[in-house]
Amino acid sequence: MRVLGVDPGLTRCGVGVVDGVAGKPLSLVHVEVLRTPAAQDLGLRLLAIAEGIEAAVERFRPDAVVVERVFAQQNLRTVTGTAQASGLALVAASRLGIRVALHTPSEVKAAITGSGTADKAQVTAMVMRILKLTTKPTPADAADALALAICQIWRGSAVIQREAAVARSLAGVKR
Amino acid sequence: MRVLGVDPGLTRCGVGVVDGVAGKPLSLVHVEVLRTPAAQDLGLRLLAIAEGIEAAVERFRPDAVVVERVFAQQNLRTVTGTAQASGLALVAASRLGIRVALHTPSEVKAAITGSGTADKAQVTAMVMRILKLTTKPTPADAADALALAICQIWRGSAVIQREAAVARSLAGVKR
Repeated sequence: MRVLGVDPGLTRCGVGVVDGVAGKPLSLVHVEVLRTPAAQDLGLRLLAIAEGIEAAVERFRPDAVVVERVFAQQNLRTVTGTAQASGLALVAASRLGIRVALHTPSEVKAAITGSGTADKAQVTAMVMRILKLTTKPTPADAADALALAICQIWRGSAVIQREAAVARSLAGVKR
Repeated sequence: MRVLGVDPGLTRCGVGVVDGVAGKPLSLVHVEVLRTPAAQDLGLRLLAIAEGIEAAVERFRPDAVVVERVFAQQNLRTVTGTAQASGLALVAASRLGIRVALHTPSEVKAAITGSGTADKAQVTAMVMRILKLTTKPTPADAADALALAICQIWRGSAVIQREAAVARSLAGVKR
């Protein structure tokens, strides 16, 4: 399974691609941070983010694209740009018929570190251990995009396993 | 001059196209409201909005696309979807090299009715008078998209006129 994670942002947008299945070692495929200058026209900044995400999705053809869920309560100053970038990622995936998923920051932290309130350094350290990286993905947006992809591989398959178990038990009842 | 206005939204997204220049009668070219069902997958809802705006931009080839500026303070519950839809409109225009502009709701109300605190009924009534419409554009998102386009034609040309005056005076200084 290949998952592309997007940590959405207008100034910095993290994009990370991870291969693997839950319960087996995962591997890093790609990581990058798309950047746009604050002084540039908003339409051109958003276009650059859209084209960067589209290029990654077309190049790596993931089975799923996972985007951090944006909450308006988080940071009023940057939430508009963050929401706009997240929408572009969701459209880039949906246009190619790729499944999309959303996870909250605390879901990702809990999945990766075991604690929903872990700090950025702890998330980065665990991403490095899980993917056996010898160099730190920087800035934090790069590590966050990889953490999202790992979370989706682990949680997504857990959900699929639960759904399969429910389907099996329902099939059992019907028999 | 042809302007396409977008009142961004996920459940209802207004799209209005107006032709004309400031100081002369303006005319309605097109108005529609894109709708997506709340129960649908978010990626597919955003894709439907993106494709609807792209179709309108490609069909009407406006000189400018104007989008309502989204403030996180306005409505915390819907701001994420509103911001995502606005980002899709800005990218649809920028991808075709069309100029984009943003106006706040109070700028639009002030330009159309003379009061930044006018209510929806007053804005709709003025849009009908300005475009000589005999039927009311509904829902309010349709009237708001047309109001944005009218505001851009009036304010945009004022800005262009000021810039032209400055350019002329600078040219005069140099001569």
